[in-house]
Parts: sequence; structure tokens; C-alpha cells
Amino acid sequence: MTTDLMPNRFRPGETDLPAREADLVARRDAVLGASYRLQYRRPVHFVRGQGMWLYDPDGRAYLDFYNNVPSLGHAHPEVNAAMTEQAGRISANTRYLEPRLVDYAERLIATFPEAMDRVVFTCTGSESNDLALRIARHVSGNDGVIVSSYAYHGTSAAVAAVSPNLGDAVRLSPSVRMVTLPGPAGIGQEQAGAHFEAQVKAAIHDLQRRGIGVAALLFDSIFSSDGVCIDPPGFIAGGADAVRAAGGLVIADEVQPGFGRTGEHMWGFQRHGIVPDLATLGKPMGNGFPIGAVVGRRDPMESFGTTARYSNTFAGNTVGIATAEAVLTILQRDDIPGNALAMGQRLRQGLESLATSQEMIGEIRNAGLFCGVDIGRPDATPLQRRKAALDVVNAMRDDGVLISTTGANEDTLKIRPPLICAGDHVDRFLETLEGALKRVASAV
Amino acid sequence: MTTDLMPNRFRPGETDLPAREADLVARRDAVLGASYRLQYRRPVHFVRGQGMWLYDPDGRAYLDFYNNVPSLGHAHPEVNAAMTEQAGRISANTRYLEPRLVDYAERLIATFPEAMDRVVFTCTGSESNDLALRIARHVSGNDGVIVSSYAYHGTSAAVAAVSPNLGDAVRLSPSVRMVTLPGPAGIGQEQAGAHFEAQVKAAIHDLQRRGIGVAALLFDSIFSSDGVCIDPPGFIAGGADAVRAAGGLVIADEVQPGFGRTGEHMWGFQRHGIVPDLATLGKPMGNGFPIGAVVGRRDPMESFGTTARYSNTFAGNTVGIATAEAVLTILQRDDIPGNALAMGQRLRQGLESLATSQEMIGEIRNAGLFCGVDIGRPDATPLQRRKAALDVVNAMRDDGVLISTTGANEDTLKIRPPLICAGDHVDRFLETLEGALKRVASAV
Repeated sequence: MTTDLMPNRFRPGETDLPAREADLVARRDAVLGASYRLQYRRPVHFVRGQGMWLYDPDGRAYLDFYNNVPSLGHAHPEVNAAMTEQAGRISANTRYLEPRLVDYAERLIATFPEAMDRVVFTCTGSESNDLALRIARHVSGNDGVIVSSYAYHGTSAAVAAVSPNLGDAVRLSPSVRMVTLPGPAGIGQEQAGAHFEAQVKAAIHDLQRRGIGVAALLFDSIFSSDGVCIDPPGFIAGGADAVRAAGGLVIADEVQPGFGRTGEHMWGFQRHGIVPDLATLGKPMGNGFPIGAVVGRRDPMESFGTTARYSNTFAGNTVGIATAEAVLTILQRDDIPGNALAMGQRLRQGLESLATSQEMIGEIRNAGLFCGVDIGRPDATPLQRRKAALDVVNAMRDDGVLISTTGANEDTLKIRPPLICAGDHVDRFLETLEGALKRVASAV
Repeated sequence: MTTDLMPNRFRPGETDLPAREADLVARRDAVLGASYRLQYRRPVHFVRGQGMWLYDPDGRAYLDFYNNVPSLGHAHPEVNAAMTEQAGRISANTRYLEPRLVDYAERLIATFPEAMDRVVFTCTGSESNDLALRIARHVSGNDGVIVSSYAYHGTSAAVAAVSPNLGDAVRLSPSVRMVTLPGPAGIGQEQAGAHFEAQVKAAIHDLQRRGIGVAALLFDSIFSSDGVCIDPPGFIAGGADAVRAAGGLVIADEVQPGFGRTGEHMWGFQRHGIVPDLATLGKPMGNGFPIGAVVGRRDPMESFGTTARYSNTFAGNTVGIATAEAVLTILQRDDIPGNALAMGQRLRQGLESLATSQEMIGEIRNAGLFCGVDIGRPDATPLQRRKAALDVVNAMRDDGVLISTTGANEDTLKIRPPLICAGDHVDRFLETLEGALKRVASAV
């Protein structure tokens, strides 16, 4: 079955738009074309952002519980001031000596386990995962990559080819193997680690008997596109060990869980008690400025760097570095991960409380401020669940709160607000969700 | 023979550095490691840039005749103001409606031939080439890519695998075929087109008989890493036709020639009188802000976009768009390509005049402000030429002018100043080059 890969989107002809938006959509389609999708049945149109809020041209405010790039909030004055100040001085590239690049690299690495002491900068999370795969294939001499069933790791050719989430239209690499996760497979928490390990070992065996070998286990430690599959902490460890024993590298895709989103830790892999060989960074690193990185253990990083050079024109330029430095300073100074933990708890408690009266709320899963909520009445079919989740998301959009869906069946609410959100934002989100659930339930 | 792939670089232990720089290099190596190379035997250290000039911590000025990212000059106030203003408002992503994205897309497309009417934004030139290859392979159903002998197209796995310039340590794709260019092959201008076409046809034949088929001819229209192989204009056309006839796409890598560098045209392919299927953009597009694009004909772009979705978190965000919009405005308003043409002529005339007295100057090739100058006495061996070019580049660095080397033997001076350079900058460059040539010649 090929499902609609982006159900929460605008479909021309399905919704009547106001003239202003209809004109803009028509002009947009004429130049940007089919690759560009708009979110929501009725697209949103924003001209200003501040903190947790986005504003449409009429001044209507939307509470942002979805965007995980501006972790420190939209249009952050301190971050922007750092970017502006550096841009007025110099945007030096990494082939010239410049102290700021080194200062930030040292500070960034200090947030990782001691064994991970090298960093290479990129411009996007896709570039980070692409480089990590290059490193893993180079040092292992193997080609095989193991990912979760519904993984998404980015948009370059090599990374798209190990992203089953992209669907049948994007050809998978002959060298990728998918493993089911314990939650979606209906495996209980006690058996979760053993299930994952057995899956990974079967994948390794299959790769080896075909002469492909295993280069890497590549995973997002909150498995966001699989539906936010996070528990129990540690279930990845046995599978990771098996990959290492087979000569592959363990790559933590920290593009979404990284930089404190999971609350208790700076990095998502720490929640699972493992130290990967490589970690890939992206989205919130510059609060919107295009910057990413691969942080890793010395041996694979140096083995790759010594023989295959890597250079990336924009990556590590001082403007991106100054911006990322401001982000890291604020994250640490204001204990943003601590806020993510506290607000994640408040969100979870509110959702659990709401679940007692709203039967459409199924399982609730969160690590800090990355939260998934399964939607659908207990007896609903997959299609009904999917439609219900989509209805809820669009009802909330109409009520001025932004979230979306995730998971193989896209019936899980994907909730990931900027990490600066406060108690009243959480409360507003919960109230809006309650209203949306009631409206959707009564419409069925 | 495997040559040193980046001869113009610092080698630890080869040069004594002042304590300040030695400390910084040591700290840098400890965190960034072997992937990061520093240019010049004695690395440069910059803390400020303005227009054509870069400044070291002691306030010494270096004339920049090398950096082709800040085409409008370093720390451009108008470009930075546009970036800052937009960052203070909103950094919207492309899944929300936002007029600025559409405005810029329309303006950008208007600079292309009419048949190229679709654009998809990326963050880097590598992402642009990677996406172009995805599109070409998707729509052709073939895998083969034809590039020049010493091509460099970027750093992602897929693009590095079609970049023979990266050397033996980076495995080439089994589906890539290299073709020799007329200049390096010693073919005269009259036979250049026929030579290129015959080479491309042979590559197509080989790809077809192996069942690989041809997806694309991918070329940088100034063939910068091959040593700036630009003449005669039009020599690419026959090869391009042959690729189309075989079902492949013609992809112009405009990352270096684009945005007016070649002087007479906005885009390098225009110099060859062809209209490609796809053009890939990067480096100078945001004068340093990480932004790129693929611009192309409707059919391949829509065929790809409709089935395989493409989304890129940072690409097309309004801050990058506002920055790129300011760059395009200035390029057009101030006729920057016209300046590149005029200054390119002044540079060429100066070099030709210098060549009458300096026997180390060989062939001079330029299109606007991308210029290659072969270095070495007529009777020199390849190794002697290589060393002479490196000596000249480093002597000029010591005299405060930045250039580097290129070409299969790295014996061609690579000269590509910001496009705002004025007559006195060109004169200063020529004087410094003359002094460096004399010093190097007398040291032999």
C-alpha cells in the first residue's frame, strides 16, 4: 500500500482560498512547481514571527507548536544580533585561520562524550547525514546501511536512498535494510531491546551473505518519522553493539533530537545510554541559519579526512559560526534543555488528563518537547485514524495553533514547539487541542 | 600518477609559524582534524573584510583576487542590511505562503532563457548538483553521468562520485565517464567542438552497451578545475545534442560561472549558445549566505516534483531569499556583469603585456573575471611548472594578494576576484604578479 506521503497539505481545487492567497498560490505554482507543497488544507500565510508566535498579513497570531528549527523562538534578537555583527566584520571560510571557528568547535565538542572529539561543519542536516554515510562507507569498506522502517534522513541522493519514508517514488538503495521498531511492531517494553537487536542482527546477516557488508546503523533516537518511538530508553544499545561487532559505525541522527529537545540531555543518544561513532547535527543549530555538523570519534573522522578531503564552501563560515555560537550560549545560559524537560512534563500531564475525557487520544509518547499522540477511537480503522488525525491538525490550524502528523499511517500528532515555550503556551495548546478533538469527534 | 590534490596548502612542520598562528593551528587540528586544510604555505589569518580587501589581526590588508563567493565584495552593507531586516521579521519556511519567496523566484527565472521556467531552492552548490543528478536519473531512467576529466561538482556522496578532481581516495561511480577537453588534449580551436562531441558520443556508447544508459552531461561551462578551459565558445553544443539524443539531460553547473562572472552574460552556458535542461546555482547567490538553486525546464522539474517530493528545511527560507534578492538587485542595478567584462578585458590586456617580458607566463584564458594563466618556462617539466605556479601564488600571498592554482597539473593560476573590482585593483594585482614572477624566475 502506498499511502499519501504528506497528507497534511493543501490540494488545489479541494479548498476555496481568499483571493490574496489564491493569487499567491497561482504565482507560486508557476515558478516553484510541483516539488513545493503547502501545509494544511487551507495554507497559512505568515509575514512576521516573534518568539512562540507567527502572524498572518491581517495580524492574526498563530501559536507555533511545530517548528523545531527556531528552538529559541522566531526572530530571536540576540541570535540575530550575533549574525549581523559578524556579517559586518567578515564571513571567512575555513581555509583561512580564524579563531571564532575554533572557539565554537571546542565549545560544541565539550557538550559531547569525551570520545567524540572531532567536528566537521556542513550547511544542512542532509549534508551531515550524507557526509556521515561517506565516512562510514569509507572506513568500514562496506556499503550496507540499516535504518528504521519509516526513517527519513534527508534529501541528498545518498540519504534519500536510505529514507523509506519518501515512498515508492524514490528508489531505495540496494544496500539499505529496514528494521521494525518495537512500538509499531506491538512489542512490549521488556522485549523492546531484544526485538531491536534481533532485527538488526538479521539485517546484518542478510547484508553480509550478499557481500554488501554493514557500513552503518543510522537512527534518529526519537524516531520521529516512525511516529515518535522513544521507549524504553536504551532499547537501541544491543543493536548498536551488533553493528559495531560487524565492522559498521553507529550514527546518531541528532538533527531533530539534538540541542536539548529531549530535555534531560543535550543529545538524544544520551537518553539511550550509548556513545555513537558519529552524530549528525542540523535544524536548530543556528536557530534558522543554515548550519549543520558531523561530530564523531577521532579514528573514523581522521581516517576519512586524511585520505578523502572534505571541503564545503559555506560550511563553517564565520557568520554561521557566530550565529550558532549565540544559540549555544543561550541554550546553556538559560538552561533551555531544562525548560524543555519541565514543559514536556507539563504537556504530558495535560495530555494524560485530556485523555481521560477524550477517547480519540491513544498512546502519548514524549521525550522533553518532542511529543507524539496517537489519534483515533479504539475501534477505528487505519484510514479512519489517519483522517481523524488530519482533521484534528486542521481544526487546530483554524483555531490558531500549528502542529502536524507523523508515523507510518500518519495518525500520530507531531508536537514539537520551540524550546522556549512557557506554561501558558502549553495550556493554550491543550485547550485548543481539546476544542479540536471535541469538534472532530462530534463531526464523525 | 596521483598528484597532490591541494598543493597550495600549509603542511605542518614545513613552515615555522608565529606563536599566535601556531597556537591557533594546534587548537584547530585538535578539534577540526584532517578534513580541514589551510591555504598557502604560510596560512593567512583574517579578522575583517571590506569590499576587495581582507585584513589580518595586525591590520595588514590583502587584496582578494580569489574568493568567488562574495562577488559583491566582503561585508557588503546593503546585502547585510537586507538579511538583518528579514531576520528580524520572519524566517518562514516554504511550506507556508510567503510572497518574498515567489517574488524572488520570478525575478531569478526572468534572467534565464524562456524555456527554463522552474526553480527549486537548495542551500549549497553541492545540494544543487546532487538534486540535478536526482532529477536527471529520475526522468531519464538511466544512471550514467558524463563529466570532464578533472571535474569537481561538489561534496555530497553522489556528486563526489562524479568528481574525478577529488582523486583516487574518493571512489568514482561505476556510472561516470570522463571526457577530455579540447584545450588540455592539445586540440586546436577549429576542431574543439568535433573533439568534444566525439568524446561524448564515445562515452554514451560505452554507457549504453553496458546497460547503464546516459542520465546527464554535467559540466561547468568554464571548466575551472580542468584549468579554465573556455574556448572556443560553443564547443559544448554538439556533445550536449548527443546527450539529449540519447535520452539524457544537459546540466550546466553554474556554481562558479553564474551570476555574471563571465561578463557578457548572466549565465556561463549562454556563452556557449546552448539552453541546458537544468542549471545549478550556488556560491555567489547570497554573497556568502548559504543558498543555491536548480533552475530548469518545466518537464523534468515537474516530472520529478510530482512523484518524488523534494523538501529542504533551510532552503528558500525568507532570510536567505531576502539576501539573495538584494544580491540580484545590486547585480542588475549596478551592471556588475558589465564591470566583470570590462575588468576582465583590462586584466587580460595587462597579462598579455606582462607575458612579453615574463617567459614564465604561458597561455592566458579568461571569460570576464574568471581567468587562468598557465605558468612555467617553455621547456619546464610538469613538476617544474607545478612548483613554479605554487611559488608564484605563495610569493603573491606574501606580497598581500590572494590567488591560487588549478588544472590537472595545478600549474595554472586561478584568478577570480570579486566582481566589483576596479581598475586600480587590477593594476595592483598585475604589479604584484610581475614582482612575484621576477622573484620566482630569479630563484630557479
